[in-house]
Amino acid sequence: MKRIAILGSTGSIGQNALAVVDTHADRLQVVALAAGENAELFAAQLARYRPRVAAMASGAAIDRLAGHLPPGVELAGTGRDGLVAVASHPDVDLVLCASAGTDGLEAVLAAIAHGKTVALANKEVLVMAGGVVMDAARRHQVAVLPVDSEHNAIHQCLHGRLRSEVKRLILTASGGPFRGRSASDLSRVSTEDALQHPTWRMGRKITIDSATLMNKGLEVIEAHWLFDVGARQIDVVIHPQSVVHSLVELTDGSLIAQLGVTDMRLPIQYAFSYPERWPAPLASLDLARAGKLEFEPPDTDAFPCLRLAYRALEAERSLPVVLNAANEVAVARFLEGRIAFTAIPQIIEGAMDAHRPAEVATLAEVRTVDAWARECSLELARAVELKV
Amino acid sequence: MKRIAILGSTGSIGQNALAVVDTHADRLQVVALAAGENAELFAAQLARYRPRVAAMASGAAIDRLAGHLPPGVELAGTGRDGLVAVASHPDVDLVLCASAGTDGLEAVLAAIAHGKTVALANKEVLVMAGGVVMDAARRHQVAVLPVDSEHNAIHQCLHGRLRSEVKRLILTASGGPFRGRSASDLSRVSTEDALQHPTWRMGRKITIDSATLMNKGLEVIEAHWLFDVGARQIDVVIHPQSVVHSLVELTDGSLIAQLGVTDMRLPIQYAFSYPERWPAPLASLDLARAGKLEFEPPDTDAFPCLRLAYRALEAERSLPVVLNAANEVAVARFLEGRIAFTAIPQIIEGAMDAHRPAEVATLAEVRTVDAWARECSLELARAVELKV
Repeated sequence: MKRIAILGSTGSIGQNALAVVDTHADRLQVVALAAGENAELFAAQLARYRPRVAAMASGAAIDRLAGHLPPGVELAGTGRDGLVAVASHPDVDLVLCASAGTDGLEAVLAAIAHGKTVALANKEVLVMAGGVVMDAARRHQVAVLPVDSEHNAIHQCLHGRLRSEVKRLILTASGGPFRGRSASDLSRVSTEDALQHPTWRMGRKITIDSATLMNKGLEVIEAHWLFDVGARQIDVVIHPQSVVHSLVELTDGSLIAQLGVTDMRLPIQYAFSYPERWPAPLASLDLARAGKLEFEPPDTDAFPCLRLAYRALEAERSLPVVLNAANEVAVARFLEGRIAFTAIPQIIEGAMDAHRPAEVATLAEVRTVDAWARECSLELARAVELKV
Repeated sequence: MKRIAILGSTGSIGQNALAVVDTHADRLQVVALAAGENAELFAAQLARYRPRVAAMASGAAIDRLAGHLPPGVELAGTGRDGLVAVASHPDVDLVLCASAGTDGLEAVLAAIAHGKTVALANKEVLVMAGGVVMDAARRHQVAVLPVDSEHNAIHQCLHGRLRSEVKRLILTASGGPFRGRSASDLSRVSTEDALQHPTWRMGRKITIDSATLMNKGLEVIEAHWLFDVGARQIDVVIHPQSVVHSLVELTDGSLIAQLGVTDMRLPIQYAFSYPERWPAPLASLDLARAGKLEFEPPDTDAFPCLRLAYRALEAERSLPVVLNAANEVAVARFLEGRIAFTAIPQIIEGAMDAHRPAEVATLAEVRTVDAWARECSLELARAVELKV
């Protein structure tokens, strides 16, 4: 029996993770849950899974939970402290980090320090603090298993192969709802348009990141940290059908790919079951029915976020922290309808240009750069705010 | 230094294998060569690679070689005896069996008995005597490594995974030059038409087998023996671009695929280098340039050979021997322009219908059924001979 903690249980990944637990109730047990603000759904999850410990993002959320806390469920706190308590609870074997943004960073480090396996669905954690997190994982000999379908695919392709066999990683990208559009087209798209992802149903922030291709940029940085390969060994190819989840090129030119239906329960289950593999109650992928799989190069003129991510990764040091913080700020503003879609890369590039790269060897240093970048990006966002 | 014997060195696979040796002269040494009737090319190979031992198919071929045998190259004999002597030479570590048809059967068994690794490019050996060969390989703890690009792909996909993780194998097929044609269309195609393979350049017999889809049928049977899976766990999908070389479906519905350029040097090198993987001097596969990959179900009405192969495999016992022998006879007749393309499956089905399945536990039993099936097929072929 593997005992699981889920950070972000009411989100899209969290709900899928609980569906995996339902399927494998004989192998998985939920012992700790943390959620953001959705008290209603969280109350239902607590009643059903009866974890030993629970946390929510804020005191206000906890207040809304009042009267719905089942007996035996201990409230661990709020905010980052709550996440840390949930992730480091002594009964937990594996922590699924699926909380939004960078809130889960301290919790992931706490999980690692307590020797828990980490299943990482939150790419911002590695983009911000990949060096700090992976160093800690090596020191504590803890596995960090990727849940993102692309990195999960690469993990599967690399399994059983030597590091010396690997020439490059190829991340596939659906291209998002605006694939094929020109830069001038994109200045007029609405928030609603951007939230229509062609192949995956996901949270709002990651859906916008998919539309800008920043999601793929963040994944390039994530892949660098997870698999210890340089920016020049990570390529991106647009693959609108999202059937091939990613590929690895080996030294002889052979490519190994992982393919599957677009259902997040698959990579979540793989991370939960690893190093085993369990049956899943999903339909097989029927290649003949899928018909055709297309591939094309990404358009980094229309989608400069991908180029910005490579620039941040190549510079290393603190620039990825700035990229990530500026992106979070800009996407939030876009979701509020306050800036244009094309202002997102402008704000990020502006913040990156304004930043003096520095070393970020500790979490405190990361948080300092992060705070500066958010401040800087808010200012840049105000300057391009739309007049309604 | 791995010391290599090549059975069939003047054929398409043999020449590609020598090109791999050229690339990796620091890792591979040719110590034994056998060829069929092409004395001119064989003389050049002997002069260049100076093996310790050599053989040809017939005394007539040896005669044509006279005066071109370099000093220090010992002639091992002709026919099956020659192949056996080359395959079991004490200096050989690995035997590549790329001789045509079923001539290499005794040589493969001799190689296994002498503890040599076998790289198998000749699928007829396993179709005829899969049980005998794989039993011997298990007994002598010898690896049989597939060189066929499809099985080589599956070997790569399975590497590092447990047998219990595997749900099914999916062999891809280009569909050959007649993909999309109806059965009535196919009755009028010429030998020249059938020899135009869309993606692979190969020998004449295998090219016709690709046009009838019998090649894929033989591969289904080969996959059964190599990977110990039943007929119902082996599927075929038509994939005209031949970029995805084959796939494995795992228990959770995940597919692992191997992709690459269509160049036989890759699977040959993999078999030579295994369990290592060496760099290859070939261009990488550019997915964005490949553009689109298509998949469709095979049409077993227009191409009944694939259905016949499944029937033979499900019956097991001696029926695959009959399928293979009848196919060799029918394809030879078609290459001579003496029967129609659509007569190939008719002859095979006729021989299978006329056969009383029996156990084939020894090579002698295999050869008896084989001889009967050839006789029967020749007779069936005479009955459908074209009037010129």
